[in-house]
Amino acid sequence: MSKLVIVGTVAFDAIETPFGQTDKILGGAATYIGLAASQYQVDSAIVSVVGGDFPKQDLEMLRNKGIDISGLEIIESGKTFFWSGKYHYDMNSRDTLATELNVLADFKPVVPKSYKDAEVVMLGNLHPIVQLSVIEQMNGPKMVLLDTMNFWMDNAWDDLMKVIKKVNVLVINDEEARQLTGEYSLVMAALKIMEMGPTNVVIKKGEHGALLFDQNDVFFAPALPLKAVFDPTGAGDTFAGGFAGFLAKNGDFSFDNMKNAIINGSAMASFCVEKFGTEGLMDLSMNDLNDRLLKFKNLTQFDIELN
Amino acid sequence: MSKLVIVGTVAFDAIETPFGQTDKILGGAATYIGLAASQYQVDSAIVSVVGGDFPKQDLEMLRNKGIDISGLEIIESGKTFFWSGKYHYDMNSRDTLATELNVLADFKPVVPKSYKDAEVVMLGNLHPIVQLSVIEQMNGPKMVLLDTMNFWMDNAWDDLMKVIKKVNVLVINDEEARQLTGEYSLVMAALKIMEMGPTNVVIKKGEHGALLFDQNDVFFAPALPLKAVFDPTGAGDTFAGGFAGFLAKNGDFSFDNMKNAIINGSAMASFCVEKFGTEGLMDLSMNDLNDRLLKFKNLTQFDIELN
Repeated sequence: MSKLVIVGTVAFDAIETPFGQTDKILGGAATYIGLAASQYQVDSAIVSVVGGDFPKQDLEMLRNKGIDISGLEIIESGKTFFWSGKYHYDMNSRDTLATELNVLADFKPVVPKSYKDAEVVMLGNLHPIVQLSVIEQMNGPKMVLLDTMNFWMDNAWDDLMKVIKKVNVLVINDEEARQLTGEYSLVMAALKIMEMGPTNVVIKKGEHGALLFDQNDVFFAPALPLKAVFDPTGAGDTFAGGFAGFLAKNGDFSFDNMKNAIINGSAMASFCVEKFGTEGLMDLSMNDLNDRLLKFKNLTQFDIELN
Repeated sequence: MSKLVIVGTVAFDAIETPFGQTDKILGGAATYIGLAASQYQVDSAIVSVVGGDFPKQDLEMLRNKGIDISGLEIIESGKTFFWSGKYHYDMNSRDTLATELNVLADFKPVVPKSYKDAEVVMLGNLHPIVQLSVIEQMNGPKMVLLDTMNFWMDNAWDDLMKVIKKVNVLVINDEEARQLTGEYSLVMAALKIMEMGPTNVVIKKGEHGALLFDQNDVFFAPALPLKAVFDPTGAGDTFAGGFAGFLAKNGDFSFDNMKNAIINGSAMASFCVEKFGTEGLMDLSMNDLNDRLLKFKNLTQFDIELN
């Protein structure tokens, strides 16, 4: 079992979907990543920052999930990062209604001493300089995964290139991969990204699944077809958390094990979208997860019959 | 080996993509379906109509592929159906520049006597009344597959419902499935379609793969990730032709064999999009196809490791 360091936002989200809406509820990339990874009972720590308005019971919940929060700074005088968004009928597009950085504006991540030797680091979407600072605090992790977004491509290109150079796996969505490389073909985009540093690329396609690449190989994991997608918020982070958590659990970073990791990430994401916010990740048993993994197997496996 | 009847357009297409453009070249749903099915060396017949302007060498080519064209009516005084379209950069959207029905306007399909006992019928996109007329000429086929499009939903709803009621498998794309049922979730859409008559539904998602449903089960086949998609024209018909051809070849209409059929359809479609028009389907060996089937296996298969 490897240790896992998770960096990203811990936030309040207000979400509106065609199925309902929420007031400020628990959200943030590191929250979703942490909850998904906790399913694999790895030793994980969240490095992030919240304000004095962050509920004590949410801190307690994270602790109860076995997540080390000694690196989760609490600025009593400040307010927690807030995001608000509204999903359209197709759930694939959303409008951001509000983004209040609050305490995140001056976030200086500090990795807890006991986690500097962690083998796996999952860098959720944040300013590339913050992500870089975390890598520099670590004692040579074996597996660094990075998420990012188009905002940093537009506004911090040089810093982004510096951090991408240092990571093993880039985990981004299809539109971001296209913007990062100027290639429409995701195969070409992945090849270009691997020239930037990473040995592997995971391209998330939302309801259309995810692709895993190395120099020689490609693997595809579908999203589970569901009767209803209730709230897609956090699905990409949950996917990344399941992926990172599974890798940390057995410390096997081979392509074959990454296949299993991407299926686990897809399974965790399928639980996430079935309920509002983090609700779908709260009370999952190992049996729930294993049942769903078998559904993915059933969904994709066939006995080839050559002609 | 079962016989296969193919109904659909045989046409001229003029295509513009970001990679180049063609003058009038061979196209049409029945052409793509027929060429894809011919890969499986089934006894197939195309039921369609062309004008006197249709090249003799194209007729000869179809014959050489082992396709019976005695049901391909030639109206010497008329002109062949013509479609012209332009693809955008992303290859997922296209503008229709011209549609000239010509001889298709009064098309009365006549199934050749020797094919009235065919077990498999693939009804390509045409007016539902034409599709219905073909079913009525057959002597109780075991497997009728139907493609259609939003145009008929808008303009011939009652006739469309009549024909859907009589088919075993509906093969349509995701947007069409949504329009047909008013359901955004493809799972819900498939369930509603199966209430209309078909026992199976195949939903084509273009570059995002295809889903196969029955009442209890769902299977997903990805599209092969390609470095470049050269021309998507005919990919959906090629997919349907590979699917129908594979089913006709071994006459096994079980869900498990349909899985193989959908993978074969996806493989054939991947050849189609790599070149302009029908070019990618012209000189495929069985080895080419089998190599590609193994790529699909490699792309999707994993050894599940339960947690």
